[in-house]
Amino acid sequence: MADPADDDRRRSIGARRNPDTQEAILQAGEAILLEEGPAAFSIEAVARRARAGKPTIYRWWPSRGTLLLDIYHRQKPQALHGPTDDLEGEIAGLIEWLSGYWQGSAGQVFRQVIAEAQRDPACAERLQSYATERRAHIGEMIERAMARGEVADTVDPLLGAEMVQSLIWHRLLTDRLALEPGEAQKIAAQLVRGLKP
Amino acid sequence: MADPADDDRRRSIGARRNPDTQEAILQAGEAILLEEGPAAFSIEAVARRARAGKPTIYRWWPSRGTLLLDIYHRQKPQALHGPTDDLEGEIAGLIEWLSGYWQGSAGQVFRQVIAEAQRDPACAERLQSYATERRAHIGEMIERAMARGEVADTVDPLLGAEMVQSLIWHRLLTDRLALEPGEAQKIAAQLVRGLKP
Repeated sequence: MADPADDDRRRSIGARRNPDTQEAILQAGEAILLEEGPAAFSIEAVARRARAGKPTIYRWWPSRGTLLLDIYHRQKPQALHGPTDDLEGEIAGLIEWLSGYWQGSAGQVFRQVIAEAQRDPACAERLQSYATERRAHIGEMIERAMARGEVADTVDPLLGAEMVQSLIWHRLLTDRLALEPGEAQKIAAQLVRGLKP
Repeated sequence: MADPADDDRRRSIGARRNPDTQEAILQAGEAILLEEGPAAFSIEAVARRARAGKPTIYRWWPSRGTLLLDIYHRQKPQALHGPTDDLEGEIAGLIEWLSGYWQGSAGQVFRQVIAEAQRDPACAERLQSYATERRAHIGEMIERAMARGEVADTVDPLLGAEMVQSLIWHRLLTDRLALEPGEAQKIAAQLVRGLKP
């Protein structure tokens, strides 16, 4: 969930009484994506599979895209790399990991979320919260590098983070995720050169 | 048209006999977008308005997204700025111009094209050709700067171009096109710093 606080506000008393239902809905959605793919994913199909009423689903998820985003977020593993003392390596590792991860079914789901956000304001709002939170995470990498003196203190860490996020989204959206050997390092090197003191 | 050569191959003899039909279809599509917006845009609606048969439309455009892309491309004005001797200014001008242009109806159309490309392979193929052609255009700005010694000769101009294109697409797709004063210059400055000798 991009912003759990939002989600809590959306929950009715009824919903609070049966959190298991929410879990059952997410699991049903995951199963449909796994077995049938994103094209077969709809609120109707998830309701049938979860044996839940559509109003119960709509209580938490106003649309197909918002439910897809939560399933994507829930399934996504934590990034493998912890903090290091090498910003270029951290960014290269992130680009390499995401480009591999998105070449699987997760990428098919996330590109559907971005597509839905172009016509569904609720999905757009939650995707923007999610993207903002991810940019903050990348921004922290850049702030740590700034504290080490690797990055000029005039740099806006969130703008640097946006350049990383933008490039990898663009690769996903234009079917260009397959990287040549050393390509992630080359991209990271050019990005980091722009941040150096 | 992202790639006129492709288009010519797709044209049947019949189509070559009546190029006016193609023009009538594009104009009908433009009128629907202008008067009713992207949500009302469909091959059916365009066929009705152009008094053309759907098979005639499908002869050139296999899907809604491919027709939307051609209408977007056809309406888009040439960039206002010619070559200068200041790469940072050229990139800032491009970002400023596109962020303004995309805050109008053209941005609504282009984000629909990107959304369609996530589920429509024909649209994905033509969008990729179009995006490649636009990156080449930005890459030429960077090559000219390289020839002036503004950019390191180790830089990959197309990677630099992709960073510009990625960032502005990302702003469009996350409803963040409205720039603060000086923001385009700040973005361009950080991008160009990464390219300097």
